[in-house]
Amino acid sequence: MHRLFLSEDCIAENTVAITGSLIHRLRNVLRLGAGDHIVVLDNSGWEYEVELRTTGRNRLEGVVTNKALAAGEPRTRITLYQALLKGSSFEMVLQKCTEIGVMSFVPMVCERCVAGEPTSNRLSRWGNIIVEAAQQSRRGKLPVLHSLVQFKEACEIGAGASILPWEGEGVRGVGDVLRSLPRAEDAPEISIFVGPEGGFSVGEVQYAQSWGITPVSLGKRILRAETAGLVAATVTLYEFGELDGSA
Amino acid sequence: MHRLFLSEDCIAENTVAITGSLIHRLRNVLRLGAGDHIVVLDNSGWEYEVELRTTGRNRLEGVVTNKALAAGEPRTRITLYQALLKGSSFEMVLQKCTEIGVMSFVPMVCERCVAGEPTSNRLSRWGNIIVEAAQQSRRGKLPVLHSLVQFKEACEIGAGASILPWEGEGVRGVGDVLRSLPRAEDAPEISIFVGPEGGFSVGEVQYAQSWGITPVSLGKRILRAETAGLVAATVTLYEFGELDGSA
Repeated sequence: MHRLFLSEDCIAENTVAITGSLIHRLRNVLRLGAGDHIVVLDNSGWEYEVELRTTGRNRLEGVVTNKALAAGEPRTRITLYQALLKGSSFEMVLQKCTEIGVMSFVPMVCERCVAGEPTSNRLSRWGNIIVEAAQQSRRGKLPVLHSLVQFKEACEIGAGASILPWEGEGVRGVGDVLRSLPRAEDAPEISIFVGPEGGFSVGEVQYAQSWGITPVSLGKRILRAETAGLVAATVTLYEFGELDGSA
Repeated sequence: MHRLFLSEDCIAENTVAITGSLIHRLRNVLRLGAGDHIVVLDNSGWEYEVELRTTGRNRLEGVVTNKALAAGEPRTRITLYQALLKGSSFEMVLQKCTEIGVMSFVPMVCERCVAGEPTSNRLSRWGNIIVEAAQQSRRGKLPVLHSLVQFKEACEIGAGASILPWEGEGVRGVGDVLRSLPRAEDAPEISIFVGPEGGFSVGEVQYAQSWGITPVSLGKRILRAETAGLVAATVTLYEFGELDGSA
């Protein structure tokens, strides 16, 4: 069943009204009409099964036939602090990490960043990529895309246990670090810091450590900058039991 | 240091000779010349540190200054049986899974495949993607790209413990299955079966089960076909301790 995030004001007690550009997609691309069912999400964690009733050119109405808590949200709340990347790599990170279950993204400027700051066009494309990936992967809430920050600022705002994949010598393995984290919490919070193509500088790693951020190794193979965040988020969610429930 | 897979016949006891199209890349793109060092791999698991001596237009020679076992190979031998995918998705799978440490790839035709069989041009591009990703991620051996097989044939040749990510109800979690596998083996062998965009059919899953392949859940979020293999391979390598050693 097709899934769609809508703003809260589109959803009344038992009815849903859709206007604007989504109409074209539902009517002409997906060819949905009266009698068809979709799932609407209000980004508060609820999902509504909706039967479409009237499908006009400018307005689409439906009635809510079921309301349930969306099942797709992990309890573990991961924030990915990701250095800007060249080309479409940042978009891949947003798409794949939304699928896997990252809760929020903070784009970050680091010493060795070669990618420029995103234009407003690019930011809007990034937002769309998150929405599409969240709908497709059955997330219950949209991951939040935060504003660009400088690396030092990121170190200061990073919450919960914080890890930083790094290729330095003698760095602890990611599993060793993850397994040592406390498990009592209901909704553990983890921050993951991933550098640009050229990696973090030694100075940056030292600065991060002074803020309690732990460098971790992801093993003997050297991952690309756009792969490291997905791998770190995957093993974190795995270690916290989030990849074990049935879909 | 730049890493390069060469065929064995380029490497004599103490000298290395490079000819052909690689010359252009080393001389003109990477701007390497006499006195520069590179790492040469012979795909047997050894790596050679080489000092370049003569860098002619058609032939590049160097002397071996060190020889060591390449450290980048995981002991766990994962084969990814991946259904053909549309667009560039299969290439992303090859690149990312080479980085993370998959040992071999078997492209597979499944019931719901919409992508056509790869042309010889595409196969050659796939090979190049594997070589580049293996060099960049410091693999010691090139992952093997096998010929295209039909799904049923794949089920028959899959070796070792075999898992198949699937979104069906009541499927065991991937961690539950991975943790139940025997650990005594020196070089455990795992086969991972990943379907096309539309997923495996129920009949295919039943056929796989009749060959001892275990369907596994990757959690409550629905991953794209091109993401599932990377996530399954990542958690397998993690569970077998392959992501814990320092780089």
